[in-house]
Amino acid sequence: MVLRPAGALKEPDVSERVVAAAFELFAADGYEATTVEAITQRAGVARRTFFRYFRSKDDVIFPDHEELLGRALDRLAELDDRPPVAAVCAATALVFEHYVGTPDRSLERYRLTRAVPALRAREIASVHSYHRAFTRYLTERFAGADRAEAALWAEAALRAEVAAGAVIAAHNQVLREWLRHGGDERGRDALEAAFGYVCRTFEKAPRKGRTQEAVVVVVRTDDSADAVATRIRRLLGEASAN
Amino acid sequence: MVLRPAGALKEPDVSERVVAAAFELFAADGYEATTVEAITQRAGVARRTFFRYFRSKDDVIFPDHEELLGRALDRLAELDDRPPVAAVCAATALVFEHYVGTPDRSLERYRLTRAVPALRAREIASVHSYHRAFTRYLTERFAGADRAEAALWAEAALRAEVAAGAVIAAHNQVLREWLRHGGDERGRDALEAAFGYVCRTFEKAPRKGRTQEAVVVVVRTDDSADAVATRIRRLLGEASAN
Repeated sequence: MVLRPAGALKEPDVSERVVAAAFELFAADGYEATTVEAITQRAGVARRTFFRYFRSKDDVIFPDHEELLGRALDRLAELDDRPPVAAVCAATALVFEHYVGTPDRSLERYRLTRAVPALRAREIASVHSYHRAFTRYLTERFAGADRAEAALWAEAALRAEVAAGAVIAAHNQVLREWLRHGGDERGRDALEAAFGYVCRTFEKAPRKGRTQEAVVVVVRTDDSADAVATRIRRLLGEASAN
Repeated sequence: MVLRPAGALKEPDVSERVVAAAFELFAADGYEATTVEAITQRAGVARRTFFRYFRSKDDVIFPDHEELLGRALDRLAELDDRPPVAAVCAATALVFEHYVGTPDRSLERYRLTRAVPALRAREIASVHSYHRAFTRYLTERFAGADRAEAALWAEAALRAEVAAGAVIAAHNQVLREWLRHGGDERGRDALEAAFGYVCRTFEKAPRKGRTQEAVVVVVRTDDSADAVATRIRRLLGEASAN
């Protein structure tokens, strides 16, 4: 893992060992029947060690949630030159890569979250934290220089929440299909196609209160370029050249 | 309430009385300190009666969830003549009306769900059940006659999940703003504007794999109408006149 110091990789990582042991036991004995004691015994760690890394048995299922969210937000911060929705798609793709990179664990987690309602609820709540974070990012990007104006900020916040919801829905749809098909090869292509659809939908979406129309401009060869530019701006409802 | 037989309204409704008592106690003593016993005592009902209507104390917070979801789906079934995303917006507006129609309870619930993480998690999970139901509806509508073709069904499912996510995000954003501002008058207008934005974004959204471009067709006065129609269909990438 990129964020872990290289030295730490030489020693088998304790929390990794706990997670692996827990998933083996969940698969063999079921989630309910597996105790924290059984997990620590199999992983060869003390109970105290377990609770240094995890708050509960549930926590073992989503050990990377905080780190993944952090990495996605770091990635977003690097992508300010991309269109806003495309940047959020690229950050979300990191999450997908994480699942695809550990297919066995992802499939076992999928099975568990479908079987145990409390885990399902936790998973849904973790999706929600992405939605909140992406909405914050997109609101800033959409509002841009207008952030001081309350009405424009409110409009940006709405567009941000809607677009973040759309990106996450696309990701979840592709991820779920990938999991349903047992983690096959086509996952990345499907995600790219899905994000392409979302970007086209939102980057070209009409601004609030405008309808999208095609306008044919007939230009006389003796018009000045400035006069044509002024007419086009007026046609597009823009007050200034920017 | 429309769905309750008129006769039942004369007797104070038992579950209503329990909910009202519970919310009074939550507000006065806090959620954690309020017991089921205290609620039944205040409502003047037996403990057994409480558990006929509610599975737990948490359940009292969202007593209308199932009924509301059912009403939203009934509404959807009546709206098959509207564009699909507009139909989902209209069904979602029922949920908003429910909150706006009982502002005191909505505000108290908002305060509670923000203060008690378990309630917050339940609320998020209930949002998820709308997302699932709306995705199913939209997939059918988007796929239309193509539902037998797996690739087209998959494309419809993706568009459905994304659009459902967008409608719900718009609703939640407006609802949250309404709650934050103490349930003021502008809620309905804000919802209408938000849904207008979502409908414009999705009903005009480009289909997957296509880019949106304007095409200027120059027609000769001696072209036949059929020849022009054929050219236009080819330009739009359509194989037949449908």
